[in-house]
Amino acid sequence: MLLNCDMGESFGAWQMGNDAAVMPYIDMANIACGFHAGSPTIMAETVALAKQHQVLIGAHPAYPDLEGFGRRSMSFQQSELAAILTYQIGAMEAICAQQGETLAYVKPHGALYNDMQSQPHLFETVVQVLAERNRHRQQPLRLMTLAPLVSAANTAATWQQQLAHRYRVPLWFEAFADRRYEANGQLRARRHADAVLQTSAEILSQAQALAQQHPINASDGSSIQLQADTLCVHGDNAESIATVAAIRKALTEVTRSTTGTTAVKPQ
Amino acid sequence: MLLNCDMGESFGAWQMGNDAAVMPYIDMANIACGFHAGSPTIMAETVALAKQHQVLIGAHPAYPDLEGFGRRSMSFQQSELAAILTYQIGAMEAICAQQGETLAYVKPHGALYNDMQSQPHLFETVVQVLAERNRHRQQPLRLMTLAPLVSAANTAATWQQQLAHRYRVPLWFEAFADRRYEANGQLRARRHADAVLQTSAEILSQAQALAQQHPINASDGSSIQLQADTLCVHGDNAESIATVAAIRKALTEVTRSTTGTTAVKPQ
Amino acid sequence: MLLNCDMGESFGAWQMGNDAAVMPYIDMANIACGFHAGSPTIMAETVALAKQHQVLIGAHPAYPDLEGFGRRSMSFQQSELAAILTYQIGAMEAICAQQGETLAYVKPHGALYNDMQSQPHLFETVVQVLAERNRHRQQPLRLMTLAPLVSAANTAATWQQQLAHRYRVPLWFEAFADRRYEANGQLRARRHADAVLQTSAEILSQAQALAQQHPINASDGSSIQLQADTLCVHGDNAESIATVAAIRKALTEVTRSTTGTTAVKPQ
Amino acid sequence: MLLNCDMGESFGAWQMGNDAAVMPYIDMANIACGFHAGSPTIMAETVALAKQHQVLIGAHPAYPDLEGFGRRSMSFQQSELAAILTYQIGAMEAICAQQGETLAYVKPHGALYNDMQSQPHLFETVVQVLAERNRHRQQPLRLMTLAPLVSAANTAATWQQQLAHRYRVPLWFEAFADRRYEANGQLRARRHADAVLQTSAEILSQAQALAQQHPINASDGSSIQLQADTLCVHGDNAESIATVAAIRKALTEVTRSTTGTTAVKPQ
Repeated sequence: MLLNCDMGESFGAWQMGNDAAVMPYIDMANIACGFHAGSPTIMAETVALAKQHQVLIGAHPAYPDLEGFGRRSMSFQQSELAAILTYQIGAMEAICAQQGETLAYVKPHGALYNDMQSQPHLFETVVQVLAERNRHRQQPLRLMTLAPLVSAANTAATWQQQLAHRYRVPLWFEAFADRRYEANGQLRARRHADAVLQTSAEILSQAQALAQQHPINASDGSSIQLQADTLCVHGDNAESIATVAAIRKALTEVTRSTTGTTAVKPQ
Repeated sequence: MLLNCDMGESFGAWQMGNDAAVMPYIDMANIACGFHAGSPTIMAETVALAKQHQVLIGAHPAYPDLEGFGRRSMSFQQSELAAILTYQIGAMEAICAQQGETLAYVKPHGALYNDMQSQPHLFETVVQVLAERNRHRQQPLRLMTLAPLVSAANTAATWQQQLAHRYRVPLWFEAFADRRYEANGQLRARRHADAVLQTSAEILSQAQALAQQHPINASDGSSIQLQADTLCVHGDNAESIATVAAIRKALTEVTRSTTGTTAVKPQ
Repeated sequence: MLLNCDMGESFGAWQMGNDAAVMPYIDMANIACGFHAGSPTIMAETVALAKQHQVLIGAHPAYPDLEGFGRRSMSFQQSELAAILTYQIGAMEAICAQQGETLAYVKPHGALYNDMQSQPHLFETVVQVLAERNRHRQQPLRLMTLAPLVSAANTAATWQQQLAHRYRVPLWFEAFADRRYEANGQLRARRHADAVLQTSAEILSQAQALAQQHPINASDGSSIQLQADTLCVHGDNAESIATVAAIRKALTEVTRSTTGTTAVKPQ
Repeated sequence: MLLNCDMGESFGAWQMGNDAAVMPYIDMANIACGFHAGSPTIMAETVALAKQHQVLIGAHPAYPDLEGFGRRSMSFQQSELAAILTYQIGAMEAICAQQGETLAYVKPHGALYNDMQSQPHLFETVVQVLAERNRHRQQPLRLMTLAPLVSAANTAATWQQQLAHRYRVPLWFEAFADRRYEANGQLRARRHADAVLQTSAEILSQAQALAQQHPINASDGSSIQLQADTLCVHGDNAESIATVAAIRKALTEVTRSTTGTTAVKPQ
């Protein structure tokens, strides 16, 4: 179970997050590409930091919306969205190559990420862009996407998996350590008071359950099982960074007890 | 002698130039990368247009300055400028790759182009970025730069050539069909009334002289010889497009009389 | 019947419209406030041009969206929208005052204009902002809004009129000389092939009918009557400017035949 | 001696400073106008906060440069700079008026502030804009500017005072509690290690000296006397806010011992 975190989201004189403090604890850095946050210089610095800590580098492309931080839905034709994604991914790949690094995956940001979960034609556009990019490269880019509920009785693949399979784009499913889920496997909307887990203990417990593929408690008290390859964590402040460190420690122990070895970072 | 033209410089609802009308007459399209003009979508459309007319595709990176159209000097550290260039070139390469095209060269835009002619450390940064990019690619990117005066008696390479040679980055020298030159080979500043050639006849005559490597008349009446691989032309309006068509026709005749064959577009 | 036209919509190096050519024929200049187009300098230049031709000056505020030219709907809380409008109107008033001019009215732009026609809470926010501004000024700002259908049998005021009346904000209703209307008095959507009147004769005819408060033909062939205080015209190119000149000439003749005097520009 | 602080410098999702924590301790809020930071909504919120604490509201206009935070010099013609300032001041006045507040002064930001100290034609443009605005208002806007050294032997007014006097624009001189000065009264450049006072004790001591019109120590050990109407303080973090609170406490004691009364906030 890999830990991923949004990174490189400062802009100009404005600082966001504490990338240097959280990088040692994570496996995957989702780096902003300049459309919702970041800049060429911030991207280069964040790639250097990820390289130093042997963290996988992901592109974190977004709708073009600095003031809205990419959190506002915007309507684009599929060819426009494809160009917007290709541009950002290409820019990030070049920044990586400049430092001898390789881009490992793509995780769309904010409203784009949400929109593609609910609108299959957007999801397909994202997958097509990655498939096109993967065609001539040895190391294929993966797409990070929200883990759907995997019901025990349901053997059919989700539409996301079917689309990705059709274009031969590998998927990584993502779950959130600190967010509550609905019984149907979707994230509980932030307007609900209990949408975000409050205590470090709750967050740790959910992280461990997800890592061991145990069921977690949904908002209505029912028990659901999510299939996730990676956990999204946050490094906004000292408290959240301490939680990330605790999750990392817990996952290492999970791995130890499961495999008898110490967890090693990828790459 | 190849003709190059700035392309893809519209933005949002604002149209600039008439790319479709001028593309048939040129050999090289310098395509804006979104920092002074253009957008991912405009880039994709302009690459498609260049592909259709078998025109070489160049990246036209700039300082990040939409309102100033990249015409204002900005001060960046070398690592910042390298990131800014790498970002734009990478974005353009990805847009090209999406259409099965290859990026052929890089021509910095506006104030960046001017600044690198007079500040060797900026020129070196640009060359380094291209060298880094070329290291692992079969088809090297070339750098377009303003043709320096090549004095008959002077056998020494210019500092631009020396820098490019050190990093093994091929240079293409560029001259302007419609601009007057000083006796020292520099462009006459735009503040002078005679900085721009006024008549189509003058422009044609200078284009032909440059193509045949004949001397041209400098602002003080003296005769200078420029060594240029490509001529910069403009497609802003109907009149300038007619001039481009006339230059293309004249160059074809020059080539015919010189080589006995019809000039063919590259690629 | 006053003619109004969108003005000052250039940005940086990008030119839009031909303000100098169309200003002599219009009565009201809707001047962009820097959020969808324009800039402080362009605003100052356009105000100077309007002043020279004794044209009424209106603020043309928009959603903050340069790349989308204010044509994309954006969701704001009412307090946010009020701040966005107040900011732009205040900036424009100050630019006017610097030249001894007074702001006469406000016409929201693009998506904001459309959204407030269909969402009463947005319309109310716009009206509140103007009411607040009018409270301490002798010369009240008016709000320009799309002319609703005024049915002969319907003596009730529209909701727009009721809202404006409640806040004591004067309204000017606007109709379009070159757009086709539906039978219910709404603009025919641009996706229909016949949404825009094609010939100068058709446009002139509709302008004259509107000026004389005669019925016009709706898209389904029925006859509707619009009550309009001002006609929106466009000055994008030579042809549209000629049409504006023809409309101005026709309206002058209408006024002459009605009142026996020559139409005079306001102010 | 009034305390002033830059305020409202957040942007979109990016937070800067802690306005709510520092507002209770200051007398004057320099509020960003959207060109280097802030937005209409942030301006409205910051004006409301200032109103709640009875703090004077100042416009803090800047060069149009979000990514550079207004800290990069930009070259404008005087008419352009006048429009840029008029726009921002007008926007801020309208935001104030919406809440029944009045704009009290203008303090240019960043590079604009620095440039106008060294380039008299820029200073004059700023003064002209304020004079124009003051012409028809009962409450004149004041201009905040860096306190020049006032040498005991030198009875001549500085060029800044002469210019402001000519246009009848009142000046407020500003000094910095936490910055070291050169013997000639200019701020010691930030590239020097001792440009910023490090300890709270040093800062307090300098603040008290300035408030009592006592001499302070310049970088070369000499003693200089600055004539300042207001002290600039910063509220970036918990430590700096504690320092502001301590300065406020010290100034209150200074005022008490001088006048026998408790200092009262202006307005």
